[in-house]
Amino acid sequence: MRPVAIVGIGRTKFGAFPDRDLRSLGIEASQKCLEDAGVKPEQVEAFYLGNFAGPSFVGQNHLAPYIAGGVGITGVPTTRFEAACASGGSSFFHAFSGVAAGLYDVVLVTGVEKMTSQPTPKVAEILAGAGDVSGEGKAGATFAALFAMIARRHMHQYGTTHEQMAMVAVKNHSNAAKNPYAHMRKVITLEQALAGKLIAEPLTIYDCSLISDGAASVLLVPLERASEFAGKPVRVAGIAQTSDFFSLDQREDITSFAAVTNAAEKAYKAAGVTAKDIQFAELHDCFTIAEIMATEDLGFVKKGEGGPYVQQGCTLLGGPRPVNPSGGLKAKGHPVGATGVAQICEVTEQIRGAAGERQVRNHDIGLAQNIGGSGATAVVTVLCAV
Amino acid sequence: MRPVAIVGIGRTKFGAFPDRDLRSLGIEASQKCLEDAGVKPEQVEAFYLGNFAGPSFVGQNHLAPYIAGGVGITGVPTTRFEAACASGGSSFFHAFSGVAAGLYDVVLVTGVEKMTSQPTPKVAEILAGAGDVSGEGKAGATFAALFAMIARRHMHQYGTTHEQMAMVAVKNHSNAAKNPYAHMRKVITLEQALAGKLIAEPLTIYDCSLISDGAASVLLVPLERASEFAGKPVRVAGIAQTSDFFSLDQREDITSFAAVTNAAEKAYKAAGVTAKDIQFAELHDCFTIAEIMATEDLGFVKKGEGGPYVQQGCTLLGGPRPVNPSGGLKAKGHPVGATGVAQICEVTEQIRGAAGERQVRNHDIGLAQNIGGSGATAVVTVLCAV
Repeated sequence: MRPVAIVGIGRTKFGAFPDRDLRSLGIEASQKCLEDAGVKPEQVEAFYLGNFAGPSFVGQNHLAPYIAGGVGITGVPTTRFEAACASGGSSFFHAFSGVAAGLYDVVLVTGVEKMTSQPTPKVAEILAGAGDVSGEGKAGATFAALFAMIARRHMHQYGTTHEQMAMVAVKNHSNAAKNPYAHMRKVITLEQALAGKLIAEPLTIYDCSLISDGAASVLLVPLERASEFAGKPVRVAGIAQTSDFFSLDQREDITSFAAVTNAAEKAYKAAGVTAKDIQFAELHDCFTIAEIMATEDLGFVKKGEGGPYVQQGCTLLGGPRPVNPSGGLKAKGHPVGATGVAQICEVTEQIRGAAGERQVRNHDIGLAQNIGGSGATAVVTVLCAV
Repeated sequence: MRPVAIVGIGRTKFGAFPDRDLRSLGIEASQKCLEDAGVKPEQVEAFYLGNFAGPSFVGQNHLAPYIAGGVGITGVPTTRFEAACASGGSSFFHAFSGVAAGLYDVVLVTGVEKMTSQPTPKVAEILAGAGDVSGEGKAGATFAALFAMIARRHMHQYGTTHEQMAMVAVKNHSNAAKNPYAHMRKVITLEQALAGKLIAEPLTIYDCSLISDGAASVLLVPLERASEFAGKPVRVAGIAQTSDFFSLDQREDITSFAAVTNAAEKAYKAAGVTAKDIQFAELHDCFTIAEIMATEDLGFVKKGEGGPYVQQGCTLLGGPRPVNPSGGLKAKGHPVGATGVAQICEVTEQIRGAAGERQVRNHDIGLAQNIGGSGATAVVTVLCAV
């Protein structure tokens, strides 16, 4: 295994773009990334596409060569990776593995989703496909309902409050307001978040991430070749993808995702770090409770202390360990297949010290955590300055 | 890169199974494969799933941990690979790469599709997603129509006849009749094939592959560890996945798939062989013309000579170079995501000398060729006896 660096990133703005199709979003992010790295399409040796449900959202499948061809990449492996909301993270994990193992030198990873062309009930139905349709789904449990159950249990077990969850939303909206790529650049108050329309008790609309269109790309190369490329390199210090039993009823404890703790342990070990070394993180806040759980599962705090951690301001942009400086899935947006790759873009940009208004203070080592479904898939990545 | 061996194979019967769901098919093939290899679920270090359109066919997405969990595989990377009709081949390619590069020692690859729960027009719509929906699809071109155009051009350019195409169907039906896993074990005559219901002129129903349910699995390990496993090992001598521009109008010549010639060249080079060394092959006969083209693109014969090649009986089970001893997509069936993995199962079983009634005479070195869409993705694999 050889060291691997990110030498290019590219993103579209996230949002609702009725005039843009999935392909054009994927091509835009890919091209911006190649430009950042100073790489021509014909130099790309493999193309990894993260996409959750293009066929269901827009009726187009076989998306990897469809987008790659539009970028001018042919004659190489082009493959779509699907792992629900961790599709982006999974495509990045496999691409990293390919470069680390010496299979390829120049690999482009793009994540993309185009969700807003479908009405919201249809979007919810498509998203439900990431969970156990014949079990949880048949019982009427949407993802909001599943995470509401998780939230209720977390509240019961650890005294976590809905106010603490709402604080995640307030923080992430505040961060997104500073992010030109974010879907929703609107600051909200705690009162607003608490008084939001109820989606699945105790979760209000402000506890839920957004339905978005968007794409993100990164370019991976061996660290030893990083100086040949235009983009300031950031090292992939450690990464792991793991899995768990599929539905919540198969888990011993629904207030923790075993796949996340497992992936974190492996990623930390590969990077030679512990949780306390992580200076900032992009976490998978599909629902606000998920960010709280992630800070626990990743070992930032002990189990049950995620609520007080956000309440004490520890995860604020100016706090001791900023979480979701991008605005997270909550406010930056959550175009599913793009999310895991966009997290890597954000951590890279932060480590480069190029995040502008939303730049975190200590930015030598950051983490991205991406989950699929209700935690059946998890990808954890540690990035660090070169 | 270290040598890699297949030490386990498992298949369900292919067919229309109204009482079976996608998951049970995937689990059955996976479990049979682990049994063949003498491997316990907890020994599996990564799970690679090939599936084209589970979300569209059965409404369930995030299929890799869904099936893996059912087999008892958790805590490892479980990922779905989608590359249209080459989803199975692509998942196998990436799994091979992982083992060859030393990332994993014990990897399970499963391909699965459950198609028959949808009515045929809906199946055709879902399959059309593998092509350019906003271009070819909008113009009304189904896959049968695209391959009919290809057939017409091949006839015009090389004098290929519809009778030659029909001979592919007759041969593959005859082989499938000897295959207990095949969907359609019905011998047909040349007269029947020629008089079949017209689907897209010149292609009749007998020129088209089947809509099937089914799953197939293989287990990969480093060759140096092969003796630790129960299944008779077969070596993966060379493999390549490549891509091409997406739609037919972007290609210079539609009578040849550049991705196939490109992948074959790379796979032959990796295996240290040439086309003439290949003793038998499983080819992607989604339509009969595709098998004829494949024999040309793989260098079995010169361009334009694929028609006479089948006509002279060269590809018969008892001929000098049997093609599709399994019955092919045409008669064994084409559960899309399973197809590429099932091809590997068949070539492995033939090399093991365990193919029973359909055993080919010379079986030291065989090839599998799997394409996605109208050739935007291609995977070519050379397997050989250890």
